[in-house]
Amino acid sequence: MIAADAGPSKGAPTVYVCITCKRADEPEADPRPGALLAAATVSAAEGTGVVVCRVQCLANCTRGPSAAVRCNGSWAYIFGGLDIAHAGALVDGAKLLAGAADGIMPWRGRPEPLKRGLIARVPPINFEEPE
Amino acid sequence: MIAADAGPSKGAPTVYVCITCKRADEPEADPRPGALLAAATVSAAEGTGVVVCRVQCLANCTRGPSAAVRCNGSWAYIFGGLDIAHAGALVDGAKLLAGAADGIMPWRGRPEPLKRGLIARVPPINFEEPE
Repeated sequence: MIAADAGPSKGAPTVYVCITCKRADEPEADPRPGALLAAATVSAAEGTGVVVCRVQCLANCTRGPSAAVRCNGSWAYIFGGLDIAHAGALVDGAKLLAGAADGIMPWRGRPEPLKRGLIARVPPINFEEPE
Repeated sequence: MIAADAGPSKGAPTVYVCITCKRADEPEADPRPGALLAAATVSAAEGTGVVVCRVQCLANCTRGPSAAVRCNGSWAYIFGGLDIAHAGALVDGAKLLAGAADGIMPWRGRPEPLKRGLIARVPPINFEEPE
């Protein structure tokens, strides 16, 4: 288990927010909804030990705005259809994942935007499926 | 750079294939298209140093069959809309990624199913966006 309230460090629970993202049906204009979501997530993460990392593209462009959540040794989860109101949900999801000994974000207690917005997940390095 | 022709090892170029996947418009029946894709990918990977890992779910259920590709230190790529004919493309994509010093699968030379089937990507652990 990774303490979600530890200070930022390598392997801390991390939210990756795409700063280029917009909804597919929106025109291109600055500030991008993804950039606004990133800023809101930085604010929401203050004092939680959750690290927020801005990225240029998570390749989920048709279903953005997008973010991913991962801890060291956990599965990585990609979410789409987000907006600025979901910053707190991303931080809560990262904390939930940090507390999951099996590296899987539990469905129970998972913030609603991280249920309906789930795009895909990727196992941790060196994952082996239990027989 | 990770040698794609090295023997299987921790951190080797790896293809994760969802064995539960089917196309969303197909009825549930065994064998699952994902399981067939996994078996074909194991065959295609023989002698290449690419490791194939069967997984129960990549949470890309509405756009399956699904697979992910990653090397140690690389971005992870999730693909959907695959079928058994794409086993070789997955192995070729893993080798392409293994040869990419920046951990990013190049678009040029990427097998066509890994272009049109791209679902999302996730940065490596400890990723920091270049300023």
